[in-house]
Amino acid sequence: MLIAAMQAEAAVLDYDANLKAIDAAAGQAAQRGARLLLTPELFVVGYAPFALKESFDPSLLGELRERLREIARRQNIALVYSMPEVAGGEWKITASCIDETGAQLAHYDKVHLFGAEEQDVFTPGHNAPAVFTYQGMTLGLAICFDVEYPELVREAALRGVEVLLVPTAVGKGYEILSTTLVPTRAMESQLYIAYANHVGTENGFELSGTSVIASPDGQILAQGGTEPTVIFATVQPSLLRQVREEVPYLREAKTQLYAQWAAQRAGN
Amino acid sequence: MLIAAMQAEAAVLDYDANLKAIDAAAGQAAQRGARLLLTPELFVVGYAPFALKESFDPSLLGELRERLREIARRQNIALVYSMPEVAGGEWKITASCIDETGAQLAHYDKVHLFGAEEQDVFTPGHNAPAVFTYQGMTLGLAICFDVEYPELVREAALRGVEVLLVPTAVGKGYEILSTTLVPTRAMESQLYIAYANHVGTENGFELSGTSVIASPDGQILAQGGTEPTVIFATVQPSLLRQVREEVPYLREAKTQLYAQWAAQRAGN
Repeated sequence: MLIAAMQAEAAVLDYDANLKAIDAAAGQAAQRGARLLLTPELFVVGYAPFALKESFDPSLLGELRERLREIARRQNIALVYSMPEVAGGEWKITASCIDETGAQLAHYDKVHLFGAEEQDVFTPGHNAPAVFTYQGMTLGLAICFDVEYPELVREAALRGVEVLLVPTAVGKGYEILSTTLVPTRAMESQLYIAYANHVGTENGFELSGTSVIASPDGQILAQGGTEPTVIFATVQPSLLRQVREEVPYLREAKTQLYAQWAAQRAGN
Repeated sequence: MLIAAMQAEAAVLDYDANLKAIDAAAGQAAQRGARLLLTPELFVVGYAPFALKESFDPSLLGELRERLREIARRQNIALVYSMPEVAGGEWKITASCIDETGAQLAHYDKVHLFGAEEQDVFTPGHNAPAVFTYQGMTLGLAICFDVEYPELVREAALRGVEVLLVPTAVGKGYEILSTTLVPTRAMESQLYIAYANHVGTENGFELSGTSVIASPDGQILAQGGTEPTVIFATVQPSLLRQVREEVPYLREAKTQLYAQWAAQRAGN
């Protein structure tokens, strides 16, 4: 299956512009034969936590979701998109996957909130990464800082995820996440990871691009620079099988032993 | 504190040659002001599991340890060395740290054995990475494949380790471990990692060198090529404090939640 990841600059609170950018990327991805387009964290509204809390109207969510379903149907491609969500007074950062009919396949609340601004505005989720099937493969959702925790990616892999789809919003100076950390996560937990970032500047925050698709042997299959782009890679069940056989990280992980060590430490 | 890591080619079962190489590296390291020299996995005897099982005489261990103590005392430097050990008919891959008086500070049995040959010859350890203090810092021991498991390095960090010392024996084609995985481990668990590998060929096995010392922000402080060398880096408590404050991976790791996810998965 060919998948695509979009990197672009969002316009904060300019939903029309952001949906238009997603539509264009979806068209480009579908034309190349991709079955799924991953978009960056909070791209629909722009990455600007304080501004969102102040000015985003949650009653728009239904309409925005409908417009995203319409894009998926018209471009005939599955979409992973990320939006804020508000329930019971709590704001969350979420990601959803819809298929090419607009049907929702998965929904996920970000568990690891990054830094003071996100932690001020949002409430963390507590569910494990979403796991779902699409086109015969097992996909998963996580968001940005989540993937920096090996425990979360391991859990996704142990739940069967073969391709982890990660909307992100990473600032300049943290390119090491794309070049080094994401490939390591893919290698150690033996799955594909697609990681789609913003570029440009949103409300004064400079974003680093360098979106990446990494393979289960730790190779970088596709990587963006600092300009808007759509990157592509083919995810292959045969490579997953081969890599998991060659160095069986997942099979030989001593999860019981790690739990005993943790319990022993807590008891000290 | 300045630390050093040696990479060299061991001569299988030629203890005199291997101790001579350790002695020379210890002298070079001490002269530069290093307080500790890390040496590669099983370097004292050579990395050759089947040959060791067949031809290594465990009754030599006491004498080899005494000669290593003598090197530490004479060169006035702490040593991390790695040897096989046999008890109750079980062979283990071990690492020890002795200080510059020859006193043993820590001992560790490798938990994650790599591949069919190691798993055929050796029995895995089950204790968490060794944790000990030296020169006012908290050091830890792990061996080779162990460090490929993020859970083990996380456990070491949560037990207070600031500098993880890792004898290794990695073959050609796996240079990604030095360039990518080890720096990620250091970054995600916010500690220094020194990783000392063999070079050359031992019993037909081609080793990749590229020994590395990585800092808690994921930078490579020193890296060897494919020739024998000693690499050096300064490990600084101030950088550990700064990095752990800047992106608090350790403080914000949701260890309880990960355990709940695992329990939930096991119950399914």
